[in-house]
Amino acid sequence: MAAADTVETIDVKHALSGAVAAGTRVLVRGWVRTRRDSKAGLSFVNLSDGSCFDAIQVVAPNTLPNYENEILHLTSGCALAAEGELVASQGKGQSFELQASRVEVLGWVDDPETYPIQPKPHSPEFLREVAHLRPRTNLFGAVTRVRHTLANAVHRFFHERGYFWVNTPIITTSDAEGAGQMFRVSTLDLMNLPRTDKGAIDFSRDFFGKETFLTVSGQLNVEAYCLALSKVYTFGPTFRAENSHTTRHLAEFWMIEPEIAFADLAEDARVAEELLKYVFKAVLAERADDMAFFADRVEKTAVSRLEAFVEAPFERIEYTDAVEILKKSGRKFEYAVEWGADLQTEHERFLTEEHVGRPVVVTNYPEKIKAFYMRLNDDGRTVAAMDVLAPGIGEIVGGSQREERLDVLDRRMAQFGLDPAHYQWYRDFRRYGTVPHAGFGLGFERLVVYVCGLGNIRDAIPYPRAPGSAEF
Amino acid sequence: MAAADTVETIDVKHALSGAVAAGTRVLVRGWVRTRRDSKAGLSFVNLSDGSCFDAIQVVAPNTLPNYENEILHLTSGCALAAEGELVASQGKGQSFELQASRVEVLGWVDDPETYPIQPKPHSPEFLREVAHLRPRTNLFGAVTRVRHTLANAVHRFFHERGYFWVNTPIITTSDAEGAGQMFRVSTLDLMNLPRTDKGAIDFSRDFFGKETFLTVSGQLNVEAYCLALSKVYTFGPTFRAENSHTTRHLAEFWMIEPEIAFADLAEDARVAEELLKYVFKAVLAERADDMAFFADRVEKTAVSRLEAFVEAPFERIEYTDAVEILKKSGRKFEYAVEWGADLQTEHERFLTEEHVGRPVVVTNYPEKIKAFYMRLNDDGRTVAAMDVLAPGIGEIVGGSQREERLDVLDRRMAQFGLDPAHYQWYRDFRRYGTVPHAGFGLGFERLVVYVCGLGNIRDAIPYPRAPGSAEF
Repeated sequence: MAAADTVETIDVKHALSGAVAAGTRVLVRGWVRTRRDSKAGLSFVNLSDGSCFDAIQVVAPNTLPNYENEILHLTSGCALAAEGELVASQGKGQSFELQASRVEVLGWVDDPETYPIQPKPHSPEFLREVAHLRPRTNLFGAVTRVRHTLANAVHRFFHERGYFWVNTPIITTSDAEGAGQMFRVSTLDLMNLPRTDKGAIDFSRDFFGKETFLTVSGQLNVEAYCLALSKVYTFGPTFRAENSHTTRHLAEFWMIEPEIAFADLAEDARVAEELLKYVFKAVLAERADDMAFFADRVEKTAVSRLEAFVEAPFERIEYTDAVEILKKSGRKFEYAVEWGADLQTEHERFLTEEHVGRPVVVTNYPEKIKAFYMRLNDDGRTVAAMDVLAPGIGEIVGGSQREERLDVLDRRMAQFGLDPAHYQWYRDFRRYGTVPHAGFGLGFERLVVYVCGLGNIRDAIPYPRAPGSAEF
Repeated sequence: MAAADTVETIDVKHALSGAVAAGTRVLVRGWVRTRRDSKAGLSFVNLSDGSCFDAIQVVAPNTLPNYENEILHLTSGCALAAEGELVASQGKGQSFELQASRVEVLGWVDDPETYPIQPKPHSPEFLREVAHLRPRTNLFGAVTRVRHTLANAVHRFFHERGYFWVNTPIITTSDAEGAGQMFRVSTLDLMNLPRTDKGAIDFSRDFFGKETFLTVSGQLNVEAYCLALSKVYTFGPTFRAENSHTTRHLAEFWMIEPEIAFADLAEDARVAEELLKYVFKAVLAERADDMAFFADRVEKTAVSRLEAFVEAPFERIEYTDAVEILKKSGRKFEYAVEWGADLQTEHERFLTEEHVGRPVVVTNYPEKIKAFYMRLNDDGRTVAAMDVLAPGIGEIVGGSQREERLDVLDRRMAQFGLDPAHYQWYRDFRRYGTVPHAGFGLGFERLVVYVCGLGNIRDAIPYPRAPGSAEF
């Protein structure tokens, strides 16, 4: 529609997609990836704006007034605005390119030789040290777009099904499930701590009037909303102050926790299966460019295993049967398999990868190894818990039906040594209109790791927090 | 499609919407709001499942086997499953009702007389004390659904326009802008604090190896992603450890912060206007039921002011002109109006409500009263900052074009007494391919307060955190 003398400002994504007709005069802006000069007096500048995986090739002729002084000095990372005609590209793998009639340098790179993001592969370890610049790489640009697409698909999935997003508190006085070490949140002056008569720290003089922590899970809080609005979910940051220096743990990570009224464990597992397939389909459909990159450069099954995942009906296996299968496997495991012990990653991966060959939901775990709020089964020795195990990663979802019977809940709390006084509000849900309900937790960064085929969870979140590490 | 002897389990929303044909046998589940018994041997039970504002009327005849023993004892808050035929309702304001052939009580209310959520109005103050039960009220059910709808519309708005959601860190070593008091995050043993040789607290022995805090803003962190992916936004929790006991402040609140590469202040304001109108249109279209309740019971202009908002082009006024307008208004303000001083709420409300009568974007504030990262204008005494002011609330959005020139940024940091060593990574964005960019912040709970017409921001978030208050 643009007249010959008007210029349309467009994203690289739109320039490359065919959405804008060849012959249109356009303006694109972005950052130089590479520059190559031909003997014929043309420079080919690959320009990325992050809107999609590919950069657009800007063809700059030596007739441009700033060709000698500027264009021939462009290096990786320089910022440009380039205007010209969009034309079908002759080069392979390129749909369109820009024949530039004007190139404006918006920002140079100070001391190009020391610029950390050179047009060559960098190790993930090095890039973590420059986490503020790593989104400029192919890898982290792709991770960011895929992470966004997964998150957006999560919200869409729940919204379309009538779930409400509930923002549970980050600062809390409760420890959710005694699940792990917590971070203290405080404004007390450490050089001058208030004390009680007995010499203890006087948290009544802290900001909230009591000792507070960062949440480890929004589940108990979101149950309140489930038991009024029926279908709800959390999607927010959670924390663990554990001294884990592994490739699978973060001190700060995002978690998705749906909570579903009137649902039993089978329904819970059905929703988890549907959710995972929905978000994987979304990323295959919407981020084919980035997924092709992951399959090419990071993990060769990145695409094929998601395609297999969305097609495969999940298997269901009871924990008790899983133990038998593992015992009869003839496999030597590092950790012994025994009824009553939790399954280790090696067991989980055997079940999903070798025994079944597709995702598996393991159900009904021994009550002693699961949290107090999980519903006791009629056998008296297992609870209605489930883990979803997937080939290539092991556990990806953990959930349960919740104990809705007050007397059973109280017995379980006593058994775990929990003080009922701390849980009066949670007990209220069982005193007032209790109903069967269930939910699960999905660690968002583990999902990103799985989809992208990453080797370290610290590369699945923009600014990873881990022991000794909270830069930027 | 259901055969006469099958039963479809449906939400109350679907039962009332006409999506399910009259005559269908359905099962609904939810919680009793009220029960009324007629002399004709029928009980009318209003059942809510939170899927929409309205409850469905379940008509239970005295021919049901548990009529005498159970149905006549139902009280507010009891949980039911009711099965029967969906029929067009004779009652006014009701589209459909359920002629029950079976009513199962899932959960009773323990000691109905002391159940905090009685079928009568409760004060918001009282309901804050039972925040775990307040979603069961009409008010908080509506707030929850509207909050969800606003949040979902925010994600949709950005996704449709090619923005990527970036999860910036919650735990941070930087203080963003020196904007306010921060909460310390630590795992140090307060009874046994490690000390340096000089007697200071030895944070090298804390979890992250240095002193860490809860973030006050994701802006500086998200700029890294803006300067690689062009269009990004944050939507996450932020924190202020200020001892504010007002109806407008929370210690923990959610913030939305888009950051837009190649944008100037005018473009920034345009995106803010488009975003606000988009989410208000969404809530008017998708939550007409809840909005009618707010207009009826909470704030009579709740609907009309949003309708006016989405129709009105925003006015633009320069700060310098705004000061002149206020001085010439003849109005006596509590705070004097003077060039160089920040506008107070009374000034903002005069401008938007009385002078213009619709939303106003005030631009180009004195540089001394705005943050160091805002772009210095050519006049040398103002910065490219903006506030969006709206009738009925005052400031709702604050933003700016960012200072992309390293030399100017360094001068501004020196002027504010900031240590450049703490901001080396932020300075890198200006050393390496700097471009004009802009962004703004929208406090999500203030948006909820505005839309719902609430009197206190503590009612706009599920579990409010404020000085002395971190219950549940």
